[in-house]
Amino acid sequence: MMDRMSPLDAAFLQLEDEEPGTSLAIASIAVFEGRAPSTDEFAAALAGRLPLIPRYRQKAREVALDLGPPVWVDDPSFDLGYHLRRTALPPPGGDRELAALMGRVMSARLDRARPLWEYWLVDGVRDAGTGEERWALISKVHHSMVDGISGTDLYRVVFDATPEPGAPAPDDWHPEPPPSDLALASAAALDLLRLPAKQARALLAAARRPRALGRTAARTARGVASLAGALVPASRTSLSGALSGHRRFALARGTVDDVRRVRSALGGTFNDVVLAAVTAGFRELLLERGEQPAPHGVRTLVPVSVRAPGEESIRDNRVSLLLADLPVDVADPVERLAAVRARLTHLKAAGEAEAGAALLAVAGGEPFPSIAAPVRLAARLPQRQIVTVTTNVPGPRRPLYALGRRLVEIVPYVPIAARLRTGVAIFSYCGRLTFGVTGDYDTAADVWTLADGIERGLAELVSAAAAQEGEEEGGPEPLRAP
Amino acid sequence: MMDRMSPLDAAFLQLEDEEPGTSLAIASIAVFEGRAPSTDEFAAALAGRLPLIPRYRQKAREVALDLGPPVWVDDPSFDLGYHLRRTALPPPGGDRELAALMGRVMSARLDRARPLWEYWLVDGVRDAGTGEERWALISKVHHSMVDGISGTDLYRVVFDATPEPGAPAPDDWHPEPPPSDLALASAAALDLLRLPAKQARALLAAARRPRALGRTAARTARGVASLAGALVPASRTSLSGALSGHRRFALARGTVDDVRRVRSALGGTFNDVVLAAVTAGFRELLLERGEQPAPHGVRTLVPVSVRAPGEESIRDNRVSLLLADLPVDVADPVERLAAVRARLTHLKAAGEAEAGAALLAVAGGEPFPSIAAPVRLAARLPQRQIVTVTTNVPGPRRPLYALGRRLVEIVPYVPIAARLRTGVAIFSYCGRLTFGVTGDYDTAADVWTLADGIERGLAELVSAAAAQEGEEEGGPEPLRAP
Repeated sequence: MMDRMSPLDAAFLQLEDEEPGTSLAIASIAVFEGRAPSTDEFAAALAGRLPLIPRYRQKAREVALDLGPPVWVDDPSFDLGYHLRRTALPPPGGDRELAALMGRVMSARLDRARPLWEYWLVDGVRDAGTGEERWALISKVHHSMVDGISGTDLYRVVFDATPEPGAPAPDDWHPEPPPSDLALASAAALDLLRLPAKQARALLAAARRPRALGRTAARTARGVASLAGALVPASRTSLSGALSGHRRFALARGTVDDVRRVRSALGGTFNDVVLAAVTAGFRELLLERGEQPAPHGVRTLVPVSVRAPGEESIRDNRVSLLLADLPVDVADPVERLAAVRARLTHLKAAGEAEAGAALLAVAGGEPFPSIAAPVRLAARLPQRQIVTVTTNVPGPRRPLYALGRRLVEIVPYVPIAARLRTGVAIFSYCGRLTFGVTGDYDTAADVWTLADGIERGLAELVSAAAAQEGEEEGGPEPLRAP
Repeated sequence: MMDRMSPLDAAFLQLEDEEPGTSLAIASIAVFEGRAPSTDEFAAALAGRLPLIPRYRQKAREVALDLGPPVWVDDPSFDLGYHLRRTALPPPGGDRELAALMGRVMSARLDRARPLWEYWLVDGVRDAGTGEERWALISKVHHSMVDGISGTDLYRVVFDATPEPGAPAPDDWHPEPPPSDLALASAAALDLLRLPAKQARALLAAARRPRALGRTAARTARGVASLAGALVPASRTSLSGALSGHRRFALARGTVDDVRRVRSALGGTFNDVVLAAVTAGFRELLLERGEQPAPHGVRTLVPVSVRAPGEESIRDNRVSLLLADLPVDVADPVERLAAVRARLTHLKAAGEAEAGAALLAVAGGEPFPSIAAPVRLAARLPQRQIVTVTTNVPGPRRPLYALGRRLVEIVPYVPIAARLRTGVAIFSYCGRLTFGVTGDYDTAADVWTLADGIERGLAELVSAAAAQEGEEEGGPEPLRAP
């Protein structure tokens, strides 16, 4: 089996080539209850589902003479043992140890000579809350693969909706013999011959400069940015600039109930509350670094619902991406939330006023697409227009399982590149809200300040909501003797 | 502090550049008794010894216009936390898990933008024999650094000769500001101007083609090879050919007493017995792969003592490297040992007959140099002349300690490159003999067959020695009723 890579996917590989040391894999950490399966047990289950994702046994192959974008070809020496690795956290196996492992795993580029994915089974994980023994699965998949398979790999190959594992898929995979360079080039040339001359020239040009395709998207983005009055270049901060080849990771947690409580007391959408918490984190990070949190200091790509008010729901995946300045200059948590809310409402209105202003609308049903979308877009925006990415993925509300073990939480990972030194990914599952914070190793060594600041930001809003509830119920709760 | 890299060291960096996916770090696993130190505790001890090895805080910097070899410059953003990592083995924490970790760690190239070393503290190690809890330290150092510091890093920065840790070294390190490209180029140009024209041209040429310096060594090697009658190209086997960018690792064990017992019953030097065991491993590997173990099938670089008979001792580091065909075609263990012995005696005699035939003679006192030497040489030999490297390093006989914990064993790692798909490194310490087996991930997936074959090979010789002892004492020991 062999198929042509989409120019957008090809652009992702090229972007990685152009930026030495950058890895454009996306990832998540899935933490499970119970005894970890043995490597053989897990490998057998995984092998039973591989037929559902052909890409997992294919590799990217360049076409000679640049006659077309790379193609996906079967990997005749596919070896599941290479892709499935096993490791463990050093004691105490907490968030710090998990994050350190994640930073190392994500610093390394996926090997282009093989299918572009790795799964890491992790032993020795302890639940951050209860201290119970857990195990984790890190799934690391190249960005260029995620588009073709809609990002639902984990749902297809690992997760079950019930404790009873699903049946293996029938597998009649026999790798096609690798096509010769000549065959690939000939096929690409034939395709071009069949097309009208003008179209062929355009395709050829696109294959040779896949990033050019992105320029249209960038123009659209600039259009939206100007509509939204964001023409001011983002203020210079330590948040953007050259990157090292290594990454750090940190994580923060909240609950969906926290967000609900804040919304019902203080107003705003789910997204507004989450972004207000992220804003608090960036404010703390800048203050800690001795920098002034300026109004245009933290411009981020944010996902917003494009549905009309009243139609929003956590499960809604029809999101649009807009550029927004996070109000890091506002010191008061409640005012900060109000500022986020006003800004996003304004941006959405501006976006909706112009047909086609929504940069990206993803149809529902697929849980992971918007992790990928902001990064793709960020890489094509003018560098001074954006300093970070914030990606918020509503996940499933019902429990999921792998080999009969219940999934406790999912921590998402967003890659950084193109002078963005930090990125925040947000995921909700079964009432749990997790923030994955990516930072450049050298220039964002303080990723935990950002992560802890996000947690504190949410906690402050919950306190403010509690105070508000108290007032509404007739003043704060009186202190009682113990 | 800044100093010029030796052309030989520079050649090593260039060799890595020319062979994509190859990593030329050397390494060892040191396994310790007792409770693992905390990362902070270990980092503090390590920091106290860094002044002893300036290279650990320097990075390689290219000189513009190729006016000279790269220089070592202080790394102003040196961060010990980057170099010292902590991980753990998944249960059961045995040799398989340790070797899998080692394979992954050694597959990754050291980051050229930083000092070229990494130490990995490993939790969750279990003693292969007793099942007791252990911890390990993987030290990974680039080949280009090892020459300058004589390979004794671990002895300087980690090991103590007593359970009482040594005092930290005084440290007045202030990184020199990084020299500008212009300054570096000017300094190199000035150096050239000060030299007689002919010498300057030669130096410039050498800097531009550092591998050319290696050609002299290769010519010497070819000289020795022809002297030794080894002009026949090595037979084609699966042991040499293109390499993938990933490595596997396996290990085997014996005791110094095993070797002594074999020597006293069957004759031969320490080296002869060890090589006979390695020969058994390669024979088993080839048979398992369905290949004929041919007389010229496994040509290896082997270290031999250049002292006269009677002067040999395990502690003797004055070794020479010779090319030898391992007698993998001989089925009987005792005959195989005799063949190894005859061959090495012949090679040594041939080598000694010609002045300068000894390829490399290292003065005593430094415990690690010969790990590096064979690899350096192998990279410069004609490809068909060699199929593997075998490097035998006699280590200390007295116990060593780190932070008061006793060192149990050291497992050495030899890198592979230049079409060599396997390599075996041998180390002895306190009566323990360890074999580290490196293999290419794709084409030597069966490294454990080689490692297990080496263990079996030594065991067979011990059995043969026991039988011989029995005969000498008047026939085999009669069976007694229990």
